[in-house]
Amino acid sequence: MAAGQDNLTAVLYGINDMRLEQRPISEPNDIQVLIQMEVVGICGSDVHYMTHGKIGPFVVEQPMVIGHEAAGTIVKCGKNVKHLQPGDRVAIEPGCPCRMCNFCKIGKYNLCPGMMFCATPPYDGNLCRFYLHDADFCFKLPCNMDFEEGALIEPLAVGVHACKRAHVKMGDLCVVFGCGPIGLVTMMAAKAMGAGKVLVTDILDMKLQKAKELGANYTIKVDPTWDDVRTAKEIQTMLKGAEPDCCFDCAGGEMIVRTALQITKAGGVVVVIGMGAEFDMKLPLANSVMKEIDLRGIFRYVNE
Amino acid sequence: MAAGQDNLTAVLYGINDMRLEQRPISEPNDIQVLIQMEVVGICGSDVHYMTHGKIGPFVVEQPMVIGHEAAGTIVKCGKNVKHLQPGDRVAIEPGCPCRMCNFCKIGKYNLCPGMMFCATPPYDGNLCRFYLHDADFCFKLPCNMDFEEGALIEPLAVGVHACKRAHVKMGDLCVVFGCGPIGLVTMMAAKAMGAGKVLVTDILDMKLQKAKELGANYTIKVDPTWDDVRTAKEIQTMLKGAEPDCCFDCAGGEMIVRTALQITKAGGVVVVIGMGAEFDMKLPLANSVMKEIDLRGIFRYVNE
Amino acid sequence: MAAGQDNLTAVLYGINDMRLEQRPISEPNDIQVLIQMEVVGICGSDVHYMTHGKIGPFVVEQPMVIGHEAAGTIVKCGKNVKHLQPGDRVAIEPGCPCRMCNFCKIGKYNLCPGMMFCATPPYDGNLCRFYLHDADFCFKLPCNMDFEEGALIEPLAVGVHACKRAHVKMGDLCVVFGCGPIGLVTMMAAKAMGAGKVLVTDILDMKLQKAKELGANYTIKVDPTWDDVRTAKEIQTMLKGAEPDCCFDCAGGEMIVRTALQITKAGGVVVVIGMGAEFDMKLPLANSVMKEIDLRGIFRYVNE
Amino acid sequence: MAAGQDNLTAVLYGINDMRLEQRPISEPNDIQVLIQMEVVGICGSDVHYMTHGKIGPFVVEQPMVIGHEAAGTIVKCGKNVKHLQPGDRVAIEPGCPCRMCNFCKIGKYNLCPGMMFCATPPYDGNLCRFYLHDADFCFKLPCNMDFEEGALIEPLAVGVHACKRAHVKMGDLCVVFGCGPIGLVTMMAAKAMGAGKVLVTDILDMKLQKAKELGANYTIKVDPTWDDVRTAKEIQTMLKGAEPDCCFDCAGGEMIVRTALQITKAGGVVVVIGMGAEFDMKLPLANSVMKEIDLRGIFRYVNE
Repeated sequence: MAAGQDNLTAVLYGINDMRLEQRPISEPNDIQVLIQMEVVGICGSDVHYMTHGKIGPFVVEQPMVIGHEAAGTIVKCGKNVKHLQPGDRVAIEPGCPCRMCNFCKIGKYNLCPGMMFCATPPYDGNLCRFYLHDADFCFKLPCNMDFEEGALIEPLAVGVHACKRAHVKMGDLCVVFGCGPIGLVTMMAAKAMGAGKVLVTDILDMKLQKAKELGANYTIKVDPTWDDVRTAKEIQTMLKGAEPDCCFDCAGGEMIVRTALQITKAGGVVVVIGMGAEFDMKLPLANSVMKEIDLRGIFRYVNE
Repeated sequence: MAAGQDNLTAVLYGINDMRLEQRPISEPNDIQVLIQMEVVGICGSDVHYMTHGKIGPFVVEQPMVIGHEAAGTIVKCGKNVKHLQPGDRVAIEPGCPCRMCNFCKIGKYNLCPGMMFCATPPYDGNLCRFYLHDADFCFKLPCNMDFEEGALIEPLAVGVHACKRAHVKMGDLCVVFGCGPIGLVTMMAAKAMGAGKVLVTDILDMKLQKAKELGANYTIKVDPTWDDVRTAKEIQTMLKGAEPDCCFDCAGGEMIVRTALQITKAGGVVVVIGMGAEFDMKLPLANSVMKEIDLRGIFRYVNE
Repeated sequence: MAAGQDNLTAVLYGINDMRLEQRPISEPNDIQVLIQMEVVGICGSDVHYMTHGKIGPFVVEQPMVIGHEAAGTIVKCGKNVKHLQPGDRVAIEPGCPCRMCNFCKIGKYNLCPGMMFCATPPYDGNLCRFYLHDADFCFKLPCNMDFEEGALIEPLAVGVHACKRAHVKMGDLCVVFGCGPIGLVTMMAAKAMGAGKVLVTDILDMKLQKAKELGANYTIKVDPTWDDVRTAKEIQTMLKGAEPDCCFDCAGGEMIVRTALQITKAGGVVVVIGMGAEFDMKLPLANSVMKEIDLRGIFRYVNE
Repeated sequence: MAAGQDNLTAVLYGINDMRLEQRPISEPNDIQVLIQMEVVGICGSDVHYMTHGKIGPFVVEQPMVIGHEAAGTIVKCGKNVKHLQPGDRVAIEPGCPCRMCNFCKIGKYNLCPGMMFCATPPYDGNLCRFYLHDADFCFKLPCNMDFEEGALIEPLAVGVHACKRAHVKMGDLCVVFGCGPIGLVTMMAAKAMGAGKVLVTDILDMKLQKAKELGANYTIKVDPTWDDVRTAKEIQTMLKGAEPDCCFDCAGGEMIVRTALQITKAGGVVVVIGMGAEFDMKLPLANSVMKEIDLRGIFRYVNE
């Protein structure tokens, strides 16, 4: 890369202190690629870091480049990179694990304590013009997929991981609470894995409408004044007695998890997605114990 | 059976109203056996029904025979019974499922809503002299096992089921909270399934001593004044940084589940045993979400 | 049922000796239903029994009613039947297990040695006007499904069971050898479970055309003169180096299994369907050992 | 390391051409450790390479250091190595995977096509005085384990991996064919994972005696003139009708796999270990299809 080439970069210095600055372009090491960025989505977490300076235990303590839902074109490959070459269009899986701890060895690298995840302090993101990334976490885009779609693969991976954790199988009845981006991709992943029917809930008609277009079989508009018992009742009425195999909390909240534990079929699974989760939740555990319902959290994704 | 033969039976008529009465001896149907009872243990649940008249949703509304940890000798076999014959000594698995619902068909008969479980209202138990039971839920005792031991197979099955739900595997580090009978059998089952080390906790020295004799690798006497953070710290100190793969709540309580969620390894499992569980628990869920810890309940046992 | 009501029944007396005769109509026991048959498919096995008098170890030794791919209307219910009533239209799962052996208890009732399977000696099939069957093996048809489709659920279940045994998951690349009915339903089941791409082979253009219409992504017309190495090569060329996660032998034959073991990805699965399988096969096992490929058979289906 | 320090090394130049020579001592890279070798076992494969120059597809084409069952003392650590320090005594897992292919990412690194495995051409082994290895494939020995035992961990890992592939669970009945080192460690691993009873076979009394001392419940001396049907019959007679859940071929041979497929319980697993396997085997596949027996190969081990 010629010295002086443009590498404009979005750097978060502190709460509401975002600066655009030129950064040098680095050389890839043996297993990295240099990528010219084409599309970088701004995720809710990027916004949250800008407005709050932290998410849960992750605190921005030094200037950090934001952005992690991204796609681009390979410019240069490290000498051990075999499956990619300059000109390839790729989606970027934003976290690179240590490759050496026990979690990495057993295939659960999303739990790797040494994970370097784009735009999660202290690791820089990729809202810049040129970005270095480990080659094996870059995935060639099919020729019928554009960069915008490529950048959306990242949130989709969250939905896929959630459905894998829930062991969604052919014919399952699923309930997705919340129709934000994560809710929608979870619904789509469940369908792709063979779910028979999916019911979605939200408090906004507009979002439910979107879910319907994308394949939701049932929608319920939740009134914010409803408690968990009432919400459970509304869902049960619409399902005419059929009990969901899997429920997904894609909105984050005690009320939702309480509702889910009440409606899930004995032997079923409730998956809680995301760090938005309140630290302490008051849950009707006796219920889930007697029905042997599993309560599982998910953190990011792995091998999707 | 000659009319008038002794069949003294312990019947619970209401709170603290237990009566001994003679009951007729019935004939086995095609798939049943008639058993002469030899040993019937009195379980905590039997006592609880006598003193409270109910356990959770199960209420004694009509006279009920108590007793479900039992062993006896076959007296007579239904015509379709092939694997047993009069004179065989058997342990009795006290619940007979409907054999026809979807839970039964998929091998999770413990979740069968039509389960007839001895001494769980409205089904009679087997604290009597002669008792009818489905033949396929009677298991021949090895000749080196006496009836007392046979009657103890039932609580052992709870421990085995708990360890199966936790997917205990060779080399695992396990923590068992509570050294009552269920805690001890859970510890023993974990060891039999290959657990490398088991740490147990209790508030009584005597129980910890018993656990040590039965194979516990570490014991911690919990001070009732400790909160979950303090208990977690004590366990972590004793384990020198090793994180448990599985934790078992065998004592029932919010404090224990809170502690377990803090110490379990990422990707690990926390199993909550028993209906003693408080209805609502306040739990640090964000913690378990980030570490992808599964929280699983167990209800009785299946195929152990 | 009024005496003398028509119950014309197709009975196989021996090789090429099929007779139509009137049979009495029986009363359902407590857990059975009486079904007026609407559609009964004639399966390859029915034809095989007629022309050969046996399939593998199953030999027709006394007159046997044929037919097992069936649908009909409930006429009468046993007294313990809750989920069905007269007038309900149902598909019939043709095998009723003993409900008591260990296979039944663990949810693998297809392996039950006491299985009574329609039109498998010595059990009668259902090519008659009125037929008794256990209620929990009758499944209500959705109102948009006609009896012809209902009768086809049975072969579809074979495909679903094959894909479950193969653990087909989202995005998998599958190869189905043979586009007969079982091949087609296996392909469809794989797609429904999320398979990314399916390649099918056959020796007939017509069958490959049908597979394409039903969703096959790649088709290969196999020349009967090809050996396993040549067939493997053709498949590998078409897949451009991508290795299948799962291969299904739906045609039965040593050559196919040999081919499958050569092309399957390390860690993948080869499923062999059906009793048509030759008794002895010469297989390149060292290959599958080094690549840790699982070779799995399937027999009928369970819980589909 | 001072220049000229002794690093005597056993190098295989060709069939029966082993030479001892001094080799330079290298510096560890960031993730490696330098190990002073204490014990290096000579495995059957080492001998096979010396006498035949190859094993299956692996051919010695240039001088290769032999040895891969090893233990030693850490002398120097790469700068990123955290869990080890000079003076630590370690066992060495001899294969280092590429850490970047899909097999590595999903936790099945034993199938990694880029695996560098000690003393498997073209990779050098560790029968030398000083040896470099990736730190995360070195495991600290407990203080009560000596170097000889440490060097034996490697074959033990094969047995553990075999039992994991077989899903050995508490109470299982297992049959191990062959009481060589791999047969013995497989038996021990099965016991450690909770197998109830293990039957072993061999053609030598001496080996069966050793197996008995190590915990075998049943032993059968196989007469080399027996065919598979006769061997199956002898085993069935000794087991009095109980059918094995898992069978392990630890001797390599068509006859053994044929026997195993005949005696294994429906739904059970037959595991074939090792590259000694003949390339083509003639197997009674119809049998295993009807009984849904899985035939699984294993190649080395992973995460044991």
